[in-house]
Parts: sequence; C-alpha cells; structure tokens
Amino acid sequence: MSADEGAWRPPAELTGVAELDFDRARRRGYPEAVYCEFKTPEQLRSIAAEVGRREARTIFTRASAEQATAVLDALPQAGHDPEARLLWWPAEPPQASGGLVVVAAAGTSDLPVAREAQRTAELLGRRTELVVDVGVAGLHRILARLDLLRSAAAVVVVAGMDGALPSVVAGLVAAPVVAVPTSVGYGAAFDGLAPLLTMLNSCAPGVAVVNIDNGYGAGHLAAQIAAPAPTTNDGNRS
Amino acid sequence: MSADEGAWRPPAELTGVAELDFDRARRRGYPEAVYCEFKTPEQLRSIAAEVGRREARTIFTRASAEQATAVLDALPQAGHDPEARLLWWPAEPPQASGGLVVVAAAGTSDLPVAREAQRTAELLGRRTELVVDVGVAGLHRILARLDLLRSAAAVVVVAGMDGALPSVVAGLVAAPVVAVPTSVGYGAAFDGLAPLLTMLNSCAPGVAVVNIDNGYGAGHLAAQIAAPAPTTNDGNRS
Amino acid sequence: MSADEGAWRPPAELTGVAELDFDRARRRGYPEAVYCEFKTPEQLRSIAAEVGRREARTIFTRASAEQATAVLDALPQAGHDPEARLLWWPAEPPQASGGLVVVAAAGTSDLPVAREAQRTAELLGRRTELVVDVGVAGLHRILARLDLLRSAAAVVVVAGMDGALPSVVAGLVAAPVVAVPTSVGYGAAFDGLAPLLTMLNSCAPGVAVVNIDNGYGAGHLAAQIAAPAPTTNDGNRS
Amino acid sequence: MSADEGAWRPPAELTGVAELDFDRARRRGYPEAVYCEFKTPEQLRSIAAEVGRREARTIFTRASAEQATAVLDALPQAGHDPEARLLWWPAEPPQASGGLVVVAAAGTSDLPVAREAQRTAELLGRRTELVVDVGVAGLHRILARLDLLRSAAAVVVVAGMDGALPSVVAGLVAAPVVAVPTSVGYGAAFDGLAPLLTMLNSCAPGVAVVNIDNGYGAGHLAAQIAAPAPTTNDGNRS
Amino acid sequence: MSADEGAWRPPAELTGVAELDFDRARRRGYPEAVYCEFKTPEQLRSIAAEVGRREARTIFTRASAEQATAVLDALPQAGHDPEARLLWWPAEPPQASGGLVVVAAAGTSDLPVAREAQRTAELLGRRTELVVDVGVAGLHRILARLDLLRSAAAVVVVAGMDGALPSVVAGLVAAPVVAVPTSVGYGAAFDGLAPLLTMLNSCAPGVAVVNIDNGYGAGHLAAQIAAPAPTTNDGNRS
Amino acid sequence: MSADEGAWRPPAELTGVAELDFDRARRRGYPEAVYCEFKTPEQLRSIAAEVGRREARTIFTRASAEQATAVLDALPQAGHDPEARLLWWPAEPPQASGGLVVVAAAGTSDLPVAREAQRTAELLGRRTELVVDVGVAGLHRILARLDLLRSAAAVVVVAGMDGALPSVVAGLVAAPVVAVPTSVGYGAAFDGLAPLLTMLNSCAPGVAVVNIDNGYGAGHLAAQIAAPAPTTNDGNRS
Amino acid sequence: MSADEGAWRPPAELTGVAELDFDRARRRGYPEAVYCEFKTPEQLRSIAAEVGRREARTIFTRASAEQATAVLDALPQAGHDPEARLLWWPAEPPQASGGLVVVAAAGTSDLPVAREAQRTAELLGRRTELVVDVGVAGLHRILARLDLLRSAAAVVVVAGMDGALPSVVAGLVAAPVVAVPTSVGYGAAFDGLAPLLTMLNSCAPGVAVVNIDNGYGAGHLAAQIAAPAPTTNDGNRS
Amino acid sequence: MSADEGAWRPPAELTGVAELDFDRARRRGYPEAVYCEFKTPEQLRSIAAEVGRREARTIFTRASAEQATAVLDALPQAGHDPEARLLWWPAEPPQASGGLVVVAAAGTSDLPVAREAQRTAELLGRRTELVVDVGVAGLHRILARLDLLRSAAAVVVVAGMDGALPSVVAGLVAAPVVAVPTSVGYGAAFDGLAPLLTMLNSCAPGVAVVNIDNGYGAGHLAAQIAAPAPTTNDGNRS
Repeated sequence: MSADEGAWRPPAELTGVAELDFDRARRRGYPEAVYCEFKTPEQLRSIAAEVGRREARTIFTRASAEQATAVLDALPQAGHDPEARLLWWPAEPPQASGGLVVVAAAGTSDLPVAREAQRTAELLGRRTELVVDVGVAGLHRILARLDLLRSAAAVVVVAGMDGALPSVVAGLVAAPVVAVPTSVGYGAAFDGLAPLLTMLNSCAPGVAVVNIDNGYGAGHLAAQIAAPAPTTNDGNRS
Repeated sequence: MSADEGAWRPPAELTGVAELDFDRARRRGYPEAVYCEFKTPEQLRSIAAEVGRREARTIFTRASAEQATAVLDALPQAGHDPEARLLWWPAEPPQASGGLVVVAAAGTSDLPVAREAQRTAELLGRRTELVVDVGVAGLHRILARLDLLRSAAAVVVVAGMDGALPSVVAGLVAAPVVAVPTSVGYGAAFDGLAPLLTMLNSCAPGVAVVNIDNGYGAGHLAAQIAAPAPTTNDGNRS
Repeated sequence: MSADEGAWRPPAELTGVAELDFDRARRRGYPEAVYCEFKTPEQLRSIAAEVGRREARTIFTRASAEQATAVLDALPQAGHDPEARLLWWPAEPPQASGGLVVVAAAGTSDLPVAREAQRTAELLGRRTELVVDVGVAGLHRILARLDLLRSAAAVVVVAGMDGALPSVVAGLVAAPVVAVPTSVGYGAAFDGLAPLLTMLNSCAPGVAVVNIDNGYGAGHLAAQIAAPAPTTNDGNRS
Repeated sequence: MSADEGAWRPPAELTGVAELDFDRARRRGYPEAVYCEFKTPEQLRSIAAEVGRREARTIFTRASAEQATAVLDALPQAGHDPEARLLWWPAEPPQASGGLVVVAAAGTSDLPVAREAQRTAELLGRRTELVVDVGVAGLHRILARLDLLRSAAAVVVVAGMDGALPSVVAGLVAAPVVAVPTSVGYGAAFDGLAPLLTMLNSCAPGVAVVNIDNGYGAGHLAAQIAAPAPTTNDGNRS
Repeated sequence: MSADEGAWRPPAELTGVAELDFDRARRRGYPEAVYCEFKTPEQLRSIAAEVGRREARTIFTRASAEQATAVLDALPQAGHDPEARLLWWPAEPPQASGGLVVVAAAGTSDLPVAREAQRTAELLGRRTELVVDVGVAGLHRILARLDLLRSAAAVVVVAGMDGALPSVVAGLVAAPVVAVPTSVGYGAAFDGLAPLLTMLNSCAPGVAVVNIDNGYGAGHLAAQIAAPAPTTNDGNRS
Repeated sequence: MSADEGAWRPPAELTGVAELDFDRARRRGYPEAVYCEFKTPEQLRSIAAEVGRREARTIFTRASAEQATAVLDALPQAGHDPEARLLWWPAEPPQASGGLVVVAAAGTSDLPVAREAQRTAELLGRRTELVVDVGVAGLHRILARLDLLRSAAAVVVVAGMDGALPSVVAGLVAAPVVAVPTSVGYGAAFDGLAPLLTMLNSCAPGVAVVNIDNGYGAGHLAAQIAAPAPTTNDGNRS
Repeated sequence: MSADEGAWRPPAELTGVAELDFDRARRRGYPEAVYCEFKTPEQLRSIAAEVGRREARTIFTRASAEQATAVLDALPQAGHDPEARLLWWPAEPPQASGGLVVVAAAGTSDLPVAREAQRTAELLGRRTELVVDVGVAGLHRILARLDLLRSAAAVVVVAGMDGALPSVVAGLVAAPVVAVPTSVGYGAAFDGLAPLLTMLNSCAPGVAVVNIDNGYGAGHLAAQIAAPAPTTNDGNRS
Repeated sequence: MSADEGAWRPPAELTGVAELDFDRARRRGYPEAVYCEFKTPEQLRSIAAEVGRREARTIFTRASAEQATAVLDALPQAGHDPEARLLWWPAEPPQASGGLVVVAAAGTSDLPVAREAQRTAELLGRRTELVVDVGVAGLHRILARLDLLRSAAAVVVVAGMDGALPSVVAGLVAAPVVAVPTSVGYGAAFDGLAPLLTMLNSCAPGVAVVNIDNGYGAGHLAAQIAAPAPTTNDGNRS
C-alpha cells in the first residue's frame, strides 16, 4: 500500500455470498440502517449514492446537519427529521401493519430521542402515538393516558434523570415496555448512566432496556414486538 | 411502638382499592412474583401461606436452599427447580399458547440463569426450547441451530464473559432477542458488567437487555413478546 | 511503645475542653451514636460501660448479634431491635414532640433499613408510622396511603433496585422526603449504587438523599426536620 | 405522522384531570420549575408565553444566556440572575415567612451554585443569608460565623473538591444541613463525584445530599425544611 | 531558574550512556515513535528537526492537522496519512519481510484506527491487507474472508460498540488476534470502555488487547508477532 | 418440560456439522479448554468422562480442590497442578517446538497465575522458563535476567499492584510481551483494575494485555506467538 | 436580596478573628494560593488588587491566558509562567534554603505539570532541578540521572499513561517521592485515572500521591519535605 | 517441567549483582518488608527462615493470624502486633532519631491502620504519638491537640467515611500530612474510595496520599519525611 492510496472505497465483500443466505432475516421488511456519527461527509455521500443505485430501503441515524446535507446531496428525495437526526429513503413509509406503538417521553427535553423512536417504528411499518411530559413527579399526567397506553402492543418509554417512568408504566400495562435512558440531566446523572441503571433494575417485570439515547434501537425493537403475526404457521405466535 | 412489636405483618393497603382497578394488567394470566433474596425464612413462610389461602398463581425467585425449604413448608405442593432457584404454585404450568420461546446459553456455566428464563416463560404459558454451549468462539454451534432460532417468536440469549452471542443471534433472526448478561467470568468481567455493556451496545438492532443474571425478567419479557394476539380488536396486533 | 501496650483505651481528649462549648448543638436532645461495625466486642464493651457511667443517652448502630451481646453485657437494660441492628440506652424513648415522621419502604426486603430509620426518629423524640411494600410497580399501594403521607412533617422513603419511589412520593407531598437507597437488588444494582443515583437525580424537588442503607442517618435527619419550633425567637421557624 | 409534522406542541394532557387532585401538594406556595438545559429557545419561548397566560409563579433553572433571552422575549418582566442561571416570574419574590436559610459556600468558585440555592429559597418565601469562602483549610473562617449558622432553620453548604465543609458544619449546628457538591475541582474530583461521595459519607448525622451543582434543589429543600408550621393541627409539627 | 528561562530544550541525558546498551532491543529494525498529542507545534518542530539531523527512522502518531504541519515544516519529505493521523520518515517503508498482517475493521467508522494499525505494520516491515465493514451483525461478511484471515501470521481486529468481532475471529483462525477497541459508539459504550471489556473477556483464547483507539500499538504488536524468525538459533522460534 | 427433567445433558449440537469445518483452526495442535469455575462437580465429571471417551487433548482451568477431585474421578490419569488450578489430559505434554516462552512474575504472590501461564504454554508445546520476584522496586533483579528475557520468542509478564513491570520489560526486549494483571494488592488496586489499566497504557509498544488473573490466556497467546513457522508457504511467516 | 445585588464582594469574615491564631502554620514562609479555574476575570482582578494592597506573597494557579491577563491588569509586576499556568507576586522568589527538589517528568507532554511543580517549590524557597523524558520504556535515561536523583531531599515524579516511573524512582532513592499523575494519554488512561491508580499501588514504599495534574500541590509538598530543620528544638527533626 | 516440581524456591537472582549497587537506597536504615497477603504459610515460613539466616531487619505486613503463626514458627523471637497485622525482626526497634511522627485516627474503627502506621514509623527509627477519635464531627477534639500536632515533623492522618480530617489538619500545621484513607464505612464509601477521593482533592496543600488501608506505607513515608538530616552536605536538607 503506498501513501497515496488512502481514500476509502466501498468494500468488495458484499458480492458473491448470496448463496449462503445468512441474511434472510433482514429481508422481512426492515430497512438497512447507516450509523452516521463518526463518518465523514464523503463517506456518507458514497453510501447514499449506493443506496440510490441499489434502491434499498435505508435509514440514516444520528446525522448532524452537515452529515444530513451530504446524504441529501446524493439522495435529494430522502425524508429528513432534523430533531430526530434521521433521514430515510424512500421518503414514503411502508404501509402500516401490526399493533400500535406508543412512545412516552418523561420530559420535553427527551423529545429528540422519543421522536427518533417514533419515526423508526413508523418506518418499520407500525402505527405510532407520542405522549410527552408525563414524568413521575406528577403522576396524574401518566394516569390520564392509561387507555392509550393499554391499547399499545409495545410501549416505548423515554426518560433521563431518575429514569423512573418505565417502572411505573410497566406496572400499568400488559404489553412489553421498551425503556430508553437519555443523557438528559447533569451531575450524578453521569450522561445517562443513572437512568440506565434505574431501568435495568426495574421492580416491575416486562422492561426491555436499550442503550442511552438509542431511540432508533427502541423504535426498531418495538416494531418487532408489535409486528403482525406470520400468516404461515412456522412456529411464531398465531 | 415498643421494642417487641417488630414482626412483619402483611400490609393493609391491599384492601379497599379494588374500585380503582389499576391492577387490570396483572390479570392477563401472568402470575405474581416474590423475590426471595434478602427475605427471612419467616417472612417467606408467611407469604407462602398467604399465597395458599388466596389461591394466587405465584412464582418465587432467587430462592436459596434454606428459603426454598421455608416456602415448601407452607406450600408443599409447589413446584421447585433448585438449579433455577425458582418455586411456583400451583405446580402445574398453564396451558401453552402463543409463539415459541427459544433460550440459548453461551456456556454450560450460564445454565442456571437460562433455566430460570425457560421456566419462567413456561410458567407464563409459552412453549420453550433450550440450547446450550453455543458461544461465538465456535460459530458452527449456533449456526447449526438456525432453523430452531428462526422458528421462535422470541429468543432469550444468555451469556457471560464477552457477552457477544446476542449480537450474533440478532443478526440471524427476525424476532426480538432478549439478552441476559450473567456474572459468569472473572477479572474484567466485573461480575457481569462487561457482558451487560456489550449487549447494550449491540451493533445489531432488536436486542432487549435485562439486568445481570435476571433470568426471571428475561423469561417474563419473552413470554410477553410471544403472547397470543388479543382476540378483541382493541389496538393490539392482529 | 512496646508490643504489649496495644490495647485500646478511651482517648483522654474528652476532658478539659468544655469551656470551648463547640458542642452546644449536640445538647438539644439528640443522643450520641456509636457506630459498631469494624469495632471489636472488647471495644464495644468498654464504650458501653462508659455510657452507663456517664448516663449519656446513646444509640448503638449497625450492631451484629455478637456486637449486641457485648453491649448488653455492659448495659443489660439497653433496648435492642435485632432487625434494625440498633441498641439504645436508656430503653425508654424520650417524650414525643414535633411533627409526624412517616417511613415508607418499597419492599419487604427493605424492612431492616426502614426499621432503623423509624427507631432512630422515635429515639430522637418523634411520633412515627411505618408503611411497607408500596413500590411503584403497583401504584395503587402508595396512592392508598396519600392521607397518611400528607399528614407527615417529614417522609422517609426506603427503596432498593430502581429506587423510583422517592420521586413519586415527592411529587405527592409538600413535606421534605428523605430518600434512603438500599443494597437490596443484584447485578446492575451494584450494591445500592443504582437507587442512589436514581434518588440524586429525582425529577421532583424536595428529595434529601443519604448514604446507602443509612437508616440511622435518615431517621436522624427526619427527626431534625420534624423538630418542634424553638420557643425562643432566635431565628428558627416560628 | 408525515415528515413535516415534527414541530413540538404543548401536550394536551394537562386538561381534564383536575378532579383527581393528585397535585394538591404543589399548591402550597411553591412555584413551578422549568429545567432549561437541553431545551431549544423555541421550546422555552412557548413555555414562557404559556406561563404568562396562565399567570403561574414559575422558576426557570440552568438557563444559558441564549436561553434566558428566549424566556425574556416572552416574559420581559421576569427576574433574572445570570450568575445563578435563574429566571423567575413574577419578578417580585413572595412575602418572607418561616425560618432563616443560611447558604455557605466553601470557595469563591462555588458562588454560582450557592447563588442558585439562595435565590431559590428566597423565591419560595424564605429569608436568606450568604457566607462565602469558608472552606475547612482555614477553620477560623467558618468558626467566626457560628452565631449566624446556629440561627438558621436550615443551612445549605456548597463545596467542591474535598467536599469536607458539610461534615464540619453539621457537627456545629442543630438544624439540618443541605449539602451540595459542586463540579469545582479537577482530576480526581471527577466533575463533582469526589465531594458527592464525601457528603454521602459524612461522619456527622443531619446531612441531606442533593445532586452535583443542584443549587435549585438545595434551595428548594431548605425552604421546605424552614417552612412555617401549618396553622391547622393536621399532623405537621406545631 | 528565572522566569524567562521557561522554553523547552531537548534533554541532555541522551549522551554518554551508550556503553550501557540497554537499548539493543530497539535496534532490531523498529522505528522510534513520537506521540504528538499534548505536544505544542514548537516542540514537534524541534523534534522533527532533530529526527532529520540524526537520520533516525521515526513515526509520529496521533498528529492533528496543525501538528502535522509543524512536522512537515521541518521534515518536508516525510510521509503523511491524515486519516490515520500518522507521519513517518523516511517516506519509503522498509522492505517487507515476515508474515502477512491482516487488519479487519468491524465498521466504516473504525477506519481511522484500522488505517493507523495497517500503516504501522507496514512501516515496521510487514505486508498488510485491510478488510472493512465485517461486523458480527452480518456474519456472512467475515465468513467470506476466512481464507484471507487464515493466511495471516497476525490478525488485527478493530471494533467499537459491542466489540464482539475479535471473539468471533479468534475462534476461526490459529494466529494470534490483536484486538483494538475503538471509541466509536455512544451512551453505554463509554468512549470505548464497552468494547475494551468485551475483548478482555473474550471467550476464545488468543486475543491480545491494546488500549482504546491504539491503532499504532496494535500494528506494532502485530508486526512483532509476524516478524521473520531470527537466522541465528538464539532461542527464538525456528 | 416437567419439573423433574432439569438435569444437565451434553448438548446434541456437536453432531452433524463436520461438513462445515469451521473448526479447522482448532486442530492445529492446541488442546480444548474447559473453564471449571461456576460448573458443578457433576457437570465436570460428565465432561471429563466425555474427554476420556473422545480421547481429546484437554485442559481444565480454574479448578478448585473440589472440582479437581471431580475431574480426577473420571480421568484418574490426568495431570494436576493445584497451585495453577489446572488439570490436563493426557498427563504428558506434547513434544516441545517453536521458540522459548519466558514467564516473569513481579512478586511471589503472583506465582499461581504465573504457573498457570507457564503450564499452559508447556501444554501447547513450548519450552518455558519461570522468573519470580523481579518487581520494579528493585530494578537490578530484572536487569540481571536480561539475557534470558532476550532469548525468548514471547515473554509473559505477570504483575499485580502497580503493574509496572511489563512497561519496563517491553522496553528491554524485541519480542512481544504478554501482560497479565493480577488481583494481588488491596485498596485502590480494585481487584486488579489498577495493574490492568497500567498495562493498557504502557508507554512502551509491544504489550499484549489479557484479562486479570488470566494465566491460561496469557500462556495460550504466548504459545501462539512462539509457534514454529508453518512448513508450507501459505502466508505465515517464514 | 434584590435582583441587582448579585455582584461578588470580598467576604467580611476575615476580620476580627486574629486573636484565635489558628493560622500560625501559614506564616512559616509559604505564600497564599488562589485557584483561578472557575473564577471570572472580574473576581480575579478584585483578588489581585487586594493582594497588592495587603502585600501578601501569593501564587495564582491554573490560570488561563484570559485569567492571567486579568491578574496582570491589577498586579503588573507579578511573575508569570504561561506553560505552568502560574502567576506569583512578588516576582522575585524567596531566598533558597533547605534541601534540593528534583522534578522528573516521564515525557515531554508532562512538561506543563512538571514546570508547575518546579516553580512552586522555587516560590516556596527551594533549589530545584528539572529532568525530562526519562520514562521507563528506556531505563537508561533515568539510570543516567541517579546521582542527581540521590542528591535530592525530595523528588517529584510526573507521569501520565502507565504512571510507572515513581515506582522505579522510589526503588532507587532514599528520599520521599512525590508522585503526580497527569492526564496525558488517551483511551483507558481515563484522563489520568490509570497513572493515579498505578502510583497509589506502588510496590515501592515512600511514594506520596497527589491529585491528577496537581503540579502545584506536588511542588508545595516537596518544598515542605525539603524544608530546613527548625532552629529551635521543638520536636521537629534536628 | 513435570507436575511434581511445582514448589516455590527462593529466586536465585539475588546473587552476583552487588557490583551494580542499585540497592544503595535500601541500606540507609530502612528494613525490608514482606507483604504477607496472598502468600501461603509455607512460603512465609521459608521467607522467615531466610530472614533469620541473613540477619536482615525485616517487617512482615498484613499478616493474618495463620500467617503470623507461620512466621513465628521460623522466627520465634520476632515482634508481633496482631491489631496492626505486623511482625518484625529483630523485636527491638532501632534507636529513635529524627523528628516526631504523630498519627491521628478519625475514629476508633480506624485504629488497626493507625497502629500499623505508628509501628512502622517506630520500626524505621522515629518517635511516635497516637491520637484517636478526633473526627471532624466534633472539632474541639482535634483542636485540643493542636500543640502536639504542631510539634510533629510529619503527621499521619487516618480516616474512613468522609475522609475529611486530613484537609482540616493540613490547614492547621506546617509539616506535611500523610493521609491514609481506610475502608471503614459502608454504602457509598465504596470500600475506601470515598475518603481516598476526598484526600486527593484536599483544599489544603501539603497532603500526601497513600493507598486505602496502607498504614505501612504511611508510616514509612512519614519516617522518611521526619528522618534526620544527613551529616554530610550532599544536597539533602541541613
């Protein structure tokens, strides 16, 4: 390798392995995802162009304004939600199916992560509802939404600081709760460690925890949980 | 309060609040759970006796040999799995319904936690299968089980040490993966912290993390995910 | 110093400094406390004998069974609550005054710490009430106790695992909430770190946090908060 | 949800729940608080406008210069203390009542947090005094203030680095000490972790710890502790 | 020392100690390395000038754009790879010898560290190959490269997030695996702590871990492992 | 699954996958390893019996006295080193080949881990030497061994407490240094965390770190590094 | 307190307490120190002006360029070392007395902290020498300085990364070693935590550890250790 | 190496290196130290026997009752302080010289570590005084000892829990303070981490920190600080 060959090129290993078919799971309707953080605009432009050529349904996550511009350069028709830091192509989400996904955010400051979860579930084909500012310091706020919460097939609960909301919600509903700690807070919140530990130690069963600020992962998991039952009787629920 | 009034008594607040019906979620077929660790044999005997009187389907978790004896004193007909540290009453699990739950354990040392997950899912009414010793250091072991894994409505993956197995499994199946880190390992495993962080940072979406060694929580969550769709069309998946 | 002079002797510095009167604060009715952990039975026997000689109201905290025996050897009339690991002398608590202290424990496993808080507040002269098993996974349990909680001048809330109860209680009452994390839990509870962080990051104001398992400190703090207003108008509340 | 519906709107759940009256505690004279960090100027402008419309006494905490401008756009009459990063509306604090709150800061660098505590206590209706630069490295400085400290109904002690001041003060006064660790320091201070642990492990009882840099929480708690006794005999101190 | 003598000067201790010859190991063909981070441009310019005078083969690691400019000022003929943040002099790498070093990066975001490892191995005289985007979420990608991986004398595996790739690769090859955790990730990745712990706890033996983002160290170690056997029979492998 | 079916049985997945041959790497002369910690004596007896039936060269690691007895019950001819907590079968190590592995232990307390490394390298077919009590507090001790250290193809350095020895050794030899932190120490050694971090941050390149107390992994890695070059020219070193 | 009274004013408590004379220790020739970090330029200007008025020998530590300008505005004759981030007044250091203080820095990147230590010792009246780039990866460098190191009454050793140098030096000299960990490093150095732990666990006795990057504290401590013996025989060394 | 050669033997490297004389520092009157923890009784018996043969002044640290018996088997005349877990040979301490070392323990529970420090300083030839139970919660206790503290050439301060005492003492004396955090405490004391951080962040300069519970290291360091000035004028203090 000489010093002037350093530019990134798309890896060649995506060819020639179709016969192994380890990737069958991916083809059940879930789009690919490109994690934008740490990638250069040049890399993203190349990837976005390839997405366009392959016509593959794709989500771009955690895109800064500059990174979003790079993606839109190559895919001008892509959808874009700056608050959620998401882009997606094609812009039209798939036809909704399966159960309802309700996303509940403890505070207004948790909105970007909640939006990321909501958008992702929508882009994987679920109907969604968003509830905001229902933290446990004012219990009446979450209790007022019980009917909506109980109508969900999966509930995503987003909270920073004390991260107490998922425990409360999991005690109120029968569906699984996907808990997303956020880095909202300061001091002993330790950038989300505090709510992460809270959620892992929930005294109510039925809480599925994902990484701090991982709205994408939460929305994806909720969409899987709320997926329609398979039509053929191949072992999945019926 | 005088010094001789210290014995524990069942709290009185369980009466008189039925009209609020916050507890409706609990009545969808999931048993109550009693966390035995930190409780004295006397407390457990009292609770077990009350379970018998109320005829409430109940699981006792993380019961030591001494604690199990206390429960069995009061509930001699209860089921008991010492390896999983679980007891349950009545001994007969409910009729199975919903999808299949597959539990995969990376190593033999992870068996107690895997058993706890499997038993719990079974006691919540799911069919279950257990696969052991399929760690990523020998990939052929997990690849040989692909058909079984893909037939599951939820997969529980139990792993200590590097905790890498859930990432690999989540890349191979479409169903949600419930990841359980275990305290199996030493040194920089830090009693399960290492696999916990691995699982929270899975590069594959669709991984739901629960607390270290929390086989009960994993089995419960998997049972909820694999639950049969509700018969009435009240918003859940159909 | 020769090798045979190693036995502990009461330090001499407690004499001759009364004229400085830095200790005035201590004389407002709060007993001395002796922290028993890490002390040998011999040391405790000596200290207890001195307490008897000086006739000083004293609490012994975190006493194991063996340590309690040593104290009772020298102070046979002392009060003793093994569950709370407390001893006190004289056995009769002071006349109650000031406001009510309510102690709420999230789970039965938190009882020893809750008892320690309740006993301490009582030994500092407050009326107390204890409420047990009111964790947030079943909200109706704490809501059923609202009237009692709102009648308190200070509420002590004891919780392990997710530590979410203080946030909920602080949103429901006007009095200060003293939050005590406990080491009840496992895995990512990290011996009480998880509920400690939860409580420090409470989204409701009015939460005063003390050390993990520090029932003594919580009861002491609650007793100070609920103390009767001073009769002379020297700047304290009236 | 389509891609262009992303703008934040005030949540609708604040209507229709007044009959439950879970919020009674809030109406005892303490203002609402809006945590500004992580919120966009647009969000803050909307919230401030709503505060003006509802005429609700409100404190805005941790507001940067840009965020303060957004609040003042919508509430030009609000009070503002840039050092404390607080705004409040209406600008006039309530009539003072209850006991005195003394705020003591170990070093000049702790002033912003100390100011935040002092302002908050004042805005909740307490008389306050501020003492600065009384760290334990020069004991005469705190000893010279003993009379003032002992006249307080609650003392807030603010310290970074070694965080040793609350232990010393709690040994000198009978009133509760609210301890606020700050992020002042470097290296092994770990952004406030060191003084936080110091305060949680205080060898003197009577220390109530709040989050790192949480001057607002400390002032709020101190104001609750120093609140006037209720006039009716409903269980609170008399 | 007066206040105006503060400028840095090359230390004098490099003279007069040649007779001790502790440095023999260094003379086996590995270049010196200068760690640029934390050094001022002035310091780097001086060091680079000295490198030119001494004609010593040298690598400059972790150089920012500004630091690289300083080095190139004094050594305009030096090689430079901005992506890898490396410079080296002379620009021509040594003649390749020994076994092949394969560098595998889990994701595109890990490229800078992977490049740093590859360049370093090359500059120490090894043939290298780079494989990118072979994370465990799509196992077919790494399995498609088995022949290449198995032809290596040492494999460097670079991964952030879950850091699971080294465990998988070490189970597939007989050569040692040098594992490099990266700071790619967010939240509970804790700037590379998560993949670091994963790699230290690999369930497959044969994994040599280096510091987070330490591509230089990984490349160096791999080059040592893949070094040609010594020609004389002095105890090394033959 | 009924309650009485809970006993462990050897998993069935080891059959029927030979055609995939992912396991080729394992067959290059390295024995299998069974990690005994966390396994019951019954499980170990079953595994050991299977080892005897299959005649597979196997190492049992981290075996307590009780666990060793269980293994020896089923494999009475196995080798056993109680200090190293290892057993192996067959008792005779393979014929030595490749380069020399030197194991250096900083202190006598590090001997068990050093022995584990030495035994493992020997059981993988390498000649070994052990050097003990050569910590950096007395530099002459390690300097007196320079000739031996420099004759090694791989050096394993075992150290607790400050973990400084690998940095010193790596500066003195050209071969790779495998660094093993041990849990020897107390207080801020944090059960081996301190030497682990020291080794990961070595200022000398060429240090390969393994898990705390992982003598087995270190010996395995050193044996791989010191392995004889392959006879066929398939890409490995020549 | 009204909203416009927020400016900082020098605290009044420095008056009227001279009769207690707790401050005698300070008057033995050590200057006061002002910690600049976290202070505003306005605060520093006021403090510097007061220093000039009181004619008190003072050191300003950790001053940024902007903060230094503020100090120099009020004290134009002050000494200033930007690399060490120190200012001092008066500019002339005191007459040197006592033993020699040698400051040894492991790497060039540690120079700012080493300079801070050297300057501080000089400003407290000691003769000093500085040795740079003597890390343990090239032992001959520190061994070449043995005579100088052994002539010191106190040695300050500054090191980042593995922090191994103090252990080596303490094994070579009889004088106390003051060890200063620095934040030089990356990844698992965790901003100086790694060398801090290394130094606390030194296998050689005689190592006094100070905070990360605390050159001021190290220089102060070294100056105290190397202080001349008191002339009167009041219990100090003679 | 065969399986029966595993017994430990004294390393041979202590011979033949006297000409290098790296060990000169050790011969200035400080005894050798043997760290007993982690060593078997057999190892200790061998080492003790060698001490007797070589007639080398030696201290054995952190010896359990069983380990002490082993040492005394081989060295029946050795001194022994079970509380301090120390043994030493010969039993007679050296003639006292240099300045006074005062050891101050915050609480009675800190006595074992304080004793270890005191004994060590005495065994290195210093006069010592011990002060106990002078924690900062009752300031009059330490203030009553000011004259003694100020007569010391070095003060060792031992404290657990909040670890605040060294900051207070360092503000009161001119001599260096050696601070020893202890593991006395519970919960958020994290086995001594809390007082360790407190001491590293002392707001008073002149604090030298050693490892948690390291009484030996503290006594050694204090003895070095309080050592008599060298008679020849070779650069040390005079």
